[in-house]
Amino acid sequence: MTRGFYIGRFQPYHQGHHEMVRRIAEEVDELVLGIGSADQSHTRRNPFTAGERIMMITKATIDMDLVTYAVPIEDLNRNSVWVSHVQSMSPRFEVAYSNNPLVVRLFREAGVEVRQSPMFRREEWEGTEVRGRMRNDGDWESLVPAPVAEVVHEIDGVGRIQQVSDSDSNGEA
Amino acid sequence: MTRGFYIGRFQPYHQGHHEMVRRIAEEVDELVLGIGSADQSHTRRNPFTAGERIMMITKATIDMDLVTYAVPIEDLNRNSVWVSHVQSMSPRFEVAYSNNPLVVRLFREAGVEVRQSPMFRREEWEGTEVRGRMRNDGDWESLVPAPVAEVVHEIDGVGRIQQVSDSDSNGEA
Amino acid sequence: MTRGFYIGRFQPYHQGHHEMVRRIAEEVDELVLGIGSADQSHTRRNPFTAGERIMMITKATIDMDLVTYAVPIEDLNRNSVWVSHVQSMSPRFEVAYSNNPLVVRLFREAGVEVRQSPMFRREEWEGTEVRGRMRNDGDWESLVPAPVAEVVHEIDGVGRIQQVSDSDSNGEA
Amino acid sequence: MTRGFYIGRFQPYHQGHHEMVRRIAEEVDELVLGIGSADQSHTRRNPFTAGERIMMITKATIDMDLVTYAVPIEDLNRNSVWVSHVQSMSPRFEVAYSNNPLVVRLFREAGVEVRQSPMFRREEWEGTEVRGRMRNDGDWESLVPAPVAEVVHEIDGVGRIQQVSDSDSNGEA
Amino acid sequence: MTRGFYIGRFQPYHQGHHEMVRRIAEEVDELVLGIGSADQSHTRRNPFTAGERIMMITKATIDMDLVTYAVPIEDLNRNSVWVSHVQSMSPRFEVAYSNNPLVVRLFREAGVEVRQSPMFRREEWEGTEVRGRMRNDGDWESLVPAPVAEVVHEIDGVGRIQQVSDSDSNGEA
Amino acid sequence: MTRGFYIGRFQPYHQGHHEMVRRIAEEVDELVLGIGSADQSHTRRNPFTAGERIMMITKATIDMDLVTYAVPIEDLNRNSVWVSHVQSMSPRFEVAYSNNPLVVRLFREAGVEVRQSPMFRREEWEGTEVRGRMRNDGDWESLVPAPVAEVVHEIDGVGRIQQVSDSDSNGEA
Repeated sequence: MTRGFYIGRFQPYHQGHHEMVRRIAEEVDELVLGIGSADQSHTRRNPFTAGERIMMITKATIDMDLVTYAVPIEDLNRNSVWVSHVQSMSPRFEVAYSNNPLVVRLFREAGVEVRQSPMFRREEWEGTEVRGRMRNDGDWESLVPAPVAEVVHEIDGVGRIQQVSDSDSNGEA
Repeated sequence: MTRGFYIGRFQPYHQGHHEMVRRIAEEVDELVLGIGSADQSHTRRNPFTAGERIMMITKATIDMDLVTYAVPIEDLNRNSVWVSHVQSMSPRFEVAYSNNPLVVRLFREAGVEVRQSPMFRREEWEGTEVRGRMRNDGDWESLVPAPVAEVVHEIDGVGRIQQVSDSDSNGEA
Repeated sequence: MTRGFYIGRFQPYHQGHHEMVRRIAEEVDELVLGIGSADQSHTRRNPFTAGERIMMITKATIDMDLVTYAVPIEDLNRNSVWVSHVQSMSPRFEVAYSNNPLVVRLFREAGVEVRQSPMFRREEWEGTEVRGRMRNDGDWESLVPAPVAEVVHEIDGVGRIQQVSDSDSNGEA
Repeated sequence: MTRGFYIGRFQPYHQGHHEMVRRIAEEVDELVLGIGSADQSHTRRNPFTAGERIMMITKATIDMDLVTYAVPIEDLNRNSVWVSHVQSMSPRFEVAYSNNPLVVRLFREAGVEVRQSPMFRREEWEGTEVRGRMRNDGDWESLVPAPVAEVVHEIDGVGRIQQVSDSDSNGEA
Repeated sequence: MTRGFYIGRFQPYHQGHHEMVRRIAEEVDELVLGIGSADQSHTRRNPFTAGERIMMITKATIDMDLVTYAVPIEDLNRNSVWVSHVQSMSPRFEVAYSNNPLVVRLFREAGVEVRQSPMFRREEWEGTEVRGRMRNDGDWESLVPAPVAEVVHEIDGVGRIQQVSDSDSNGEA
Repeated sequence: MTRGFYIGRFQPYHQGHHEMVRRIAEEVDELVLGIGSADQSHTRRNPFTAGERIMMITKATIDMDLVTYAVPIEDLNRNSVWVSHVQSMSPRFEVAYSNNPLVVRLFREAGVEVRQSPMFRREEWEGTEVRGRMRNDGDWESLVPAPVAEVVHEIDGVGRIQQVSDSDSNGEA
């Protein structure tokens, strides 16, 4: 049995993530999806709460032939302990998947195997694009799995991102 | 569809928790198991990491006819924001289950429905008992579901609890 | 113009505090009441929120011939920076009032004048006594100014302290 | 009796804030002025400490026919619990006043009534303008109530903002 | 070249620590003395600041034939990341020395070699004893190296411990 | 005996720092080098851990006729308590050295003597330059003392900075 770990912010979970999960599914039996910056929400870059992101991931992956765990990972803002933090919050895993250079570096310095994919940084580009289209009433729904669009509608996610995008600080005035 | 929320430290997940989950299963379609004090581990009172507790819960509930989510909840040490913190980390829920008076109070002050059970505080007693037996080489395995015992063995959980029980502070000397 | 600073947890603000404020009023023109452990609430030792304590203090001192400021001070859990923390949160003051030995020591090491009173530690004893009577349905009202009793009633403070007194941790089970 | 809540950073408290308070005064009996980012000071954007801002607000509003409370609110950097945090630090309020879109969103998602004014974002523009004039020896005094100018002079606020404006980090070199 | 790591709170650095350092000196070329709970001071259990403890250690070991580093380690209150935290704050080391069971466990789970000594827990007993004698005007000086006694006198350490010993909380009253 | 304090991030310790230390050595007997942002590492701006920076400083200053202490200072992100924080972590010092305007301001407001040098901000410029050359395979070695270059090579510092420079956040995707 092999268990993999895939970290992302999933703001929101989109087709780029989904394609990545499908590829990882060919290599592992179980997959932990680590939800990064779990403590952040209601900002332009991190509009959704960890709980909302758990819903998106769980509903989008429910029919896959893969045991998945969606695990929120709060920011500690200390790179030097980040791998230990992730390991303590997650079921044990043998291999990490990431296209983020810092994540790759941190895992490798800690002796954890990391695999990258040719779709380098597609996820990141796509996350920014999805949020941009949400703000501008563009077609964001074609970029996410259908169950994710449902979650976004239920929580008025588009209304939220449009309102907070002018300002990300609540101490203002 | 009704979703419930059940908070515990699950150190470890034992028969008392399991019985509680079985009863809740009669009332809800989905259940979030909030893993409290997720940031704590390797102490007498909190021997297991959040990741280890996710494994215990997931393996013990896998055959139940109930959709479950195991969600780590880190301590914020501010009771006044605790309900909001839980709500942000968890898929949305309609009813909370707890036998802990403080938890009941906090949810009620926030307007969340809470249900208690007649097995008042059995879970807490049982958690203390299980950890006590682990420390003293007693029969703790009969108090936990079989898959939990397997997880504890895999991670040398008994060895850990016996070693840390003399001292819970790492700044000592 | 002289401004004094008087730190307490005010859980709740009681006759011992009130008497102390009356005496301080003879020596200063303005008084800052620093509400310690402002981030704590809903526990046996700290049942009331900072906001509730501001209400108690403001209503109880409104008729005194003294300009007062009620300022919440969150715990930093670092004694070495505590005086700087207090000074940054409070209008500038010339003299501190306290009967707590640690507070006295910290201010003196920082070169701040501290005055103590003969009613040594009466406040602390009285705080414990008030909370004990609340828990046991005793006569706590005679130990607090009338406006404080009103605030406690409005927020069901006695119900709260009775419920949380069994347990001060929300990660339980 | 109606109590309102108005959040700002008040860096410093200026005519835009003052005008807003005057308008709110027509609608409520008491007003809590929440001092946001209370833990920040000595930076270009947040030059003044919470204590200094309490002084500005208190002196500027002392003659108004309105009971006011100046309450420091430290940043928690978690939007999802921000409303609960504010509510725990403040006397209970029925209506919040803000022109900041994020603040409006957070209060509304939490079910708190929020009122906005036509003077949309004037406060924010004005705060930036005041600090800019302070840095460049311009006429900032006409933009703030007279008692605020006095406080700024007492603490050498202009000297401070001119010195720290080159650099906002103390770990430099 | 071998570098060792020895963690303690050093409240204060005493003969038990000193003897331990002497023995370690026979096995390594360089030794890092990690000062645990570096953020704590002015309490019964942690009377001295990290800076004061650096002075004690540096002066007491200056004549030893051993390169030493005194490195403050702040508490993170998360055992699962503690080893990574220590490793990031310290020059790289090959072997850790400790008689504290939790520390031994944490290092071993992280794959770091740990050596214990037959003088099991003498340091801990001795730390408590030294602080007890300081509080009660007993002979504590014979339990610490002479340069440590000098540091304690310079900072009025005995006066401090006697004053704070009644109370370790600054939010009191 | 005079002891000085010199704060920097030392990312890495370079010739600008070294020259500054040489000048300070003419004025003091002992020097504390405070390693700022000690909790930060593996970013473009803060590539090295506190422990790695201790090694650089210690090896580079070992032959100087000056007693030095390298003390990590973690960020508290509260300017108002920063001087107290530094003082609690460091052996007592009489004079601080800095060319950073904020640091100068904070020390002066706290009544600590600060000395600046004509080589204003050379250190900061040089730190940015060294890291830039590391990223671009330029000649960075001529800008740092030889022992620092050795430390950087041992830990594959150039590989690290090149990998993390694309991205400083680990919650990405």
